[in-house]
Amino acid sequence: MTATLFSAIGELVTNDPALGDGSALGIVRDAALVAEDGRVVWVGSADEAPAADERVDLGGRAVVPGFVDSHTHLVFAGERSAEFAARMAGEPYTGGGIMTTVAATRAASDATLRANARRLHAEMTASGTTTIEAKSGYGLTVDDERRLLSISRELTAETTFLGAHVVPAESAADRAGYVALVCGAMLDACAPHARWIDVFCDVGAFGEDEARAVLAAGAAAGLLPRLHGNQLARGPGVRLAVELGAASVDHCNHLTEDDVEALASSATVATLLPGADFSTRAPYADARRLLDAGATVALATDCNPGSSYVTSMPLVIALAVREMRMTPGEALWAATAGGAAALRRDDVGRLGPGARADLAALDAPSYVHLAYRPGAPLVADVFTGGRTAVTDKE
Amino acid sequence: MTATLFSAIGELVTNDPALGDGSALGIVRDAALVAEDGRVVWVGSADEAPAADERVDLGGRAVVPGFVDSHTHLVFAGERSAEFAARMAGEPYTGGGIMTTVAATRAASDATLRANARRLHAEMTASGTTTIEAKSGYGLTVDDERRLLSISRELTAETTFLGAHVVPAESAADRAGYVALVCGAMLDACAPHARWIDVFCDVGAFGEDEARAVLAAGAAAGLLPRLHGNQLARGPGVRLAVELGAASVDHCNHLTEDDVEALASSATVATLLPGADFSTRAPYADARRLLDAGATVALATDCNPGSSYVTSMPLVIALAVREMRMTPGEALWAATAGGAAALRRDDVGRLGPGARADLAALDAPSYVHLAYRPGAPLVADVFTGGRTAVTDKE
Repeated sequence: MTATLFSAIGELVTNDPALGDGSALGIVRDAALVAEDGRVVWVGSADEAPAADERVDLGGRAVVPGFVDSHTHLVFAGERSAEFAARMAGEPYTGGGIMTTVAATRAASDATLRANARRLHAEMTASGTTTIEAKSGYGLTVDDERRLLSISRELTAETTFLGAHVVPAESAADRAGYVALVCGAMLDACAPHARWIDVFCDVGAFGEDEARAVLAAGAAAGLLPRLHGNQLARGPGVRLAVELGAASVDHCNHLTEDDVEALASSATVATLLPGADFSTRAPYADARRLLDAGATVALATDCNPGSSYVTSMPLVIALAVREMRMTPGEALWAATAGGAAALRRDDVGRLGPGARADLAALDAPSYVHLAYRPGAPLVADVFTGGRTAVTDKE
Repeated sequence: MTATLFSAIGELVTNDPALGDGSALGIVRDAALVAEDGRVVWVGSADEAPAADERVDLGGRAVVPGFVDSHTHLVFAGERSAEFAARMAGEPYTGGGIMTTVAATRAASDATLRANARRLHAEMTASGTTTIEAKSGYGLTVDDERRLLSISRELTAETTFLGAHVVPAESAADRAGYVALVCGAMLDACAPHARWIDVFCDVGAFGEDEARAVLAAGAAAGLLPRLHGNQLARGPGVRLAVELGAASVDHCNHLTEDDVEALASSATVATLLPGADFSTRAPYADARRLLDAGATVALATDCNPGSSYVTSMPLVIALAVREMRMTPGEALWAATAGGAAALRRDDVGRLGPGARADLAALDAPSYVHLAYRPGAPLVADVFTGGRTAVTDKE
């Protein structure tokens, strides 16, 4: 086993309050980190760094845990820029365009889907993301959902079966039949390729009883529940997610006081997706209200070709600070440790001993620059499991 | 002289209505472009492309004119991320932090200033910007303003003397004396290094009479007028800019109906800076109102370490579409041809015959993706004067 010393870290964010300055971010200045066998084995002051087999000099850069993007729709075909332009000219977002992508995805070969997913995965990695969740949901047939998950599984262990994304057009007259398919043959085909089950519980998608049936069937098949909810209107999504012990409820734009209290007193993470609010010109989720109530907040891209064709977690952080009134520190935590909590992972989203050595080195003296310098290509080097994934473009 | 054929352009934006589809963007599909001696000499359908000495295959990418960033404060030292974080936590932006950068800039060596400016210039070029305006204004002494312009001139011909950025702290008791210095010895030292003269005419900066005196002195020294105005409040800035025939008045957040009419009936460009509105959490300028009235609108980054540490014109375009209700086409035009108009240049910001061969090739089928895919690194290749400036990172 080779030990690698990452030295000359100007500012190291560990997300471990026991390390460093005692804040939630656990910041160590003038730091070093040792990785061995893919894991962090030592973190501390550069002065006290132990010897190692290899050394990577980070030149005084700030280092943060690799971003954990806990909500993406990674595998699809086609694009919807014309729909985007029409929306920016005033047409509302209703989710109705999902069927456009379903049609393109069903028509695409595995090779096309794989190439597109790999391109986006590479783009995410280059912007500092080292853990990616990927949902199905653009197939909506047994075979298509299964192949989306099979391709997703080539890229990540965090795969989510979202057969209950929308009722496909051909099943509009038989909603119950479609839900039964999702809970039956489609689940049987997909469960071997998925860790999670998800349902879009909102106006225009699935109602409370349907969502409950889907998540119960998934649980019976060994999948863990998560939920899209409260994006387009107030509704039962958050309440149901908390009741079922879902790891996360995602979007959370329209919350009642009861919803906020339910999240604050549960282990269900509120995952906010400012890229979707940006790209649909929707009111941003109120992160400040959730944080002040004591809820756990995660940030993710919602990468998809309809409502958020975003891969950049730095942009998501900048939007969360500008638009959701998170501090830069809260936003970074939500994009790393928060995403890990939303995936019930304790080995990512932090850089304390025992964690995976997944880290991003920034061309900046502090993580604050992720929000202070929106749009700038600050992520210079990315390491996954202690190995170089992306190196400085200069 | 070597002729270079840029072939396999899926979508070419020329900004020449006489070419292509007749729109303001002058779009040619399945296009080619020939450059010779740094200039565009031929544009048309790929089928009809003439022979050339060299060939660059753009693989079906969309190609746009290189961005014209007509408002930057490129040369400075230090950073103000702590001020940014405090502002995001609720402190208002007053422009008072400018003196922080002035102190850091005065204390910095030429080498430090040059290295920082070159780093930002490279970042801008990599994101597709091929013409950059650069202002002084963080020196505010005769020697410091002169050296900022001298360093700027190493990087661009579009240099602007902004001694009238703010009244420096040491002159607070003698505003008239400072204005006389700007109009006298400072102008004498700076004019040989500058094309433009600029003044920040707003609350907390300079009043109408002061601004008029500065621009008149600049004009007498052969400099062309431009103006920062109406950022923080309604005021005389726009009216003065139009009266004096300024090429541009920049910010334009707070306009009366008279201001809008004055802009619509003049050749003075309204340059909007959404990065500053983003980073100061200020209300965005109302581009829709200006466009609907018939004013010419430009978009620029306002790159500076206080209110807009932004280098990415693609981010500026995305913000203008989301927040200012520009269409993706209007935003692209404003970021290219609009910037050229704001600099009174007819050789950049377009790709018709005679223009400089400054172009950006996008990893996308259409320029619409600049707004549709916010934060994504879409600019793959950049050519200035027909030569490779940046090549695809893949």
